[in-house]
Amino acid sequence: MRYPLITLTTDFGQGSSYVAAMKGVLLAGNPRAQLIDLSHSLPPQDIRAAALLLDDAVPYFPAETLHVVVVDPGVGTDRSLVFVRSGCGSFLAPDNGVLGLISQRFPAEEIYELRERRYWRAPVSATFHGRDILAPVASHLSQGLDPAQLGPRRAQIHGLALPEPVVKASTIHGEILHVDSFGNLISNVRREHLHDAVDLRQLTVGIQGKAVTRFVTTFGEAVPGTLVLLFGSTGRLEIAVVDGNAATELGILAGAPVTVHIRSTEYSEERGPT
Amino acid sequence: MRYPLITLTTDFGQGSSYVAAMKGVLLAGNPRAQLIDLSHSLPPQDIRAAALLLDDAVPYFPAETLHVVVVDPGVGTDRSLVFVRSGCGSFLAPDNGVLGLISQRFPAEEIYELRERRYWRAPVSATFHGRDILAPVASHLSQGLDPAQLGPRRAQIHGLALPEPVVKASTIHGEILHVDSFGNLISNVRREHLHDAVDLRQLTVGIQGKAVTRFVTTFGEAVPGTLVLLFGSTGRLEIAVVDGNAATELGILAGAPVTVHIRSTEYSEERGPT
Amino acid sequence: MRYPLITLTTDFGQGSSYVAAMKGVLLAGNPRAQLIDLSHSLPPQDIRAAALLLDDAVPYFPAETLHVVVVDPGVGTDRSLVFVRSGCGSFLAPDNGVLGLISQRFPAEEIYELRERRYWRAPVSATFHGRDILAPVASHLSQGLDPAQLGPRRAQIHGLALPEPVVKASTIHGEILHVDSFGNLISNVRREHLHDAVDLRQLTVGIQGKAVTRFVTTFGEAVPGTLVLLFGSTGRLEIAVVDGNAATELGILAGAPVTVHIRSTEYSEERGPT
Repeated sequence: MRYPLITLTTDFGQGSSYVAAMKGVLLAGNPRAQLIDLSHSLPPQDIRAAALLLDDAVPYFPAETLHVVVVDPGVGTDRSLVFVRSGCGSFLAPDNGVLGLISQRFPAEEIYELRERRYWRAPVSATFHGRDILAPVASHLSQGLDPAQLGPRRAQIHGLALPEPVVKASTIHGEILHVDSFGNLISNVRREHLHDAVDLRQLTVGIQGKAVTRFVTTFGEAVPGTLVLLFGSTGRLEIAVVDGNAATELGILAGAPVTVHIRSTEYSEERGPT
Repeated sequence: MRYPLITLTTDFGQGSSYVAAMKGVLLAGNPRAQLIDLSHSLPPQDIRAAALLLDDAVPYFPAETLHVVVVDPGVGTDRSLVFVRSGCGSFLAPDNGVLGLISQRFPAEEIYELRERRYWRAPVSATFHGRDILAPVASHLSQGLDPAQLGPRRAQIHGLALPEPVVKASTIHGEILHVDSFGNLISNVRREHLHDAVDLRQLTVGIQGKAVTRFVTTFGEAVPGTLVLLFGSTGRLEIAVVDGNAATELGILAGAPVTVHIRSTEYSEERGPT
Repeated sequence: MRYPLITLTTDFGQGSSYVAAMKGVLLAGNPRAQLIDLSHSLPPQDIRAAALLLDDAVPYFPAETLHVVVVDPGVGTDRSLVFVRSGCGSFLAPDNGVLGLISQRFPAEEIYELRERRYWRAPVSATFHGRDILAPVASHLSQGLDPAQLGPRRAQIHGLALPEPVVKASTIHGEILHVDSFGNLISNVRREHLHDAVDLRQLTVGIQGKAVTRFVTTFGEAVPGTLVLLFGSTGRLEIAVVDGNAATELGILAGAPVTVHIRSTEYSEERGPT
């Protein structure tokens, strides 16, 4: 198999020389590789943010894509580097949980630990395995190297546990997983956590001492400045300000708790007959 | 017609998963598409900023380029999505004015409203038509789909009115349209608003209570730190600090008023004999 | 020679219309050119930052790459624009020192001054030679134009003097050259400034009134929050906070002085017998 497309996901910062050096190594190995920047703006060392980004974006790519991920706080320690192939694509990454969410939805079908130094640059620096190991290995794979050559087969990779919401009869206790570039607050509460019969227009969400009650399906339903609830394009419950920035206006960061209150009367009535 | 090049212009933020997801859909549809990032750093929901960027950049691209634009505060409401072909390229965008400036210079020659769901992803989310409609349609077009298949022909698209300067005998009242990444203040006053005979070295521009009088043709003419006037590379009158940041130093944002004072004596004298 | 790959390095700001316009001119001239963004996030007018980035990244690229560099505070003055070919690649840039570091390691083998206007856009603006001269010339070169057609041959280009550390018996006085996107402080002290026999674990580095003594070879050796010393992936001595931001925590900018103290006893003992 050859990989015509190679994506890059790092926490190096847009425009940093570390990204540039990796691109150089990739293209020196295979000048025909198509490089696609997924993100270089992940918060430094934030494994969860990387895992969420991959979970949101990778399933849309063709399966013959190689995704190179370098969010690697443990670089140089005994964490391993792995090649993973699954139904939604292939990956080169540190085995530190960055693939933990995408691999729940698309289980790893083949895993190899990177050990064969003949496919690496020499010498290997202690702090930049993206440039010295992952990029040259990606070049080799993109040109048809059999991944079984990279090192020993492995049975599994590290998972990543996202905080799961606590679902009760009339409340759901969740948290904000991520703040997007619009300042929308994206929670870990998904549509399936709510009974089908729940009238979404009757929800109240408590966050930072504020009660948010206006449920919309799209931003244009409410006037600019309104604080709204919606299920966003990734299927998660979001709190947003129409044409504004909810994170800034509410002073919220990832990790903030949210409580969804389900109106028990409505809920009971709807539910009764079933 | 096939489009070998597809550009992307959004307000999603550099490195956001929304951009990544759109790239995935585009490449899944056509792995040979060449994707070019124009900008993902537009201010959120800022239709005018998007229109100015397209007006500044698109005319330099080959005409067989497809420009996909997602600055879409009305996503999910009854605003339509359109395909537009003109002499400077083709576009997929919401019909909300983002194409309003470029289409003044390069009038739309063909317009279709996107209605044929067979070219979209299914289901279509309520908040992310860039991923679910524009990206898959762009993939189809890049491979030769006749745009007439996309939906009904339309006669026109929404325009965008930039504030026009008020030109009087000895003054021009304009405003700052845009602050660039150097902090240069780019106004809506263009060279053609000034009589040919005006001695540019005699201009005084009032902004935020300051009088700027030093006209230059290039930054190197004045020492670092000097506040200067010049006609920039897009033909608009700019106020800048040499090797500095005028926006920060003067505390100016887009929308600030500027007044150009033309020395009436000089002007009259020059003008008299003609 | 043809250049299949063209990289772009500017201080225009990620997502600015100036970058977009350059890409348009490049692709209008050669729609098959592969464009690679090295960085558009360099500090405005910072020639040294540009030179460091090129020095860190360019050697990893294939030699048949054309690097277009637009950090050009002197645009429109009598500084010249040059084409340079060396063992690590070819360049189009203002002759202002941006190539001064990379050309120390990979001396220029051919230099031409850009003078032949037939390869430029017309008219040429006074403030944007990246769009009007460098981009169209890059397009021509990428398609096989002989660089000797561009203008007269030149013998040399401007160098760039980085501050060199002052090395004494038991101290080295250096400075911070650059702060990376992790907040790591990258100094001008390199491994070769220290005698081979020096025990690195015995170093003390003074910066901003703080003494840093913990030498590591990789970040994972110390617990998060620890202030550490290491030789980074570019071979320079760095001061970092494990999983943190040293620049923010110490309040340091590029240019700050650092003093490396070598334990004289150890050093003398080790050195004595040789």
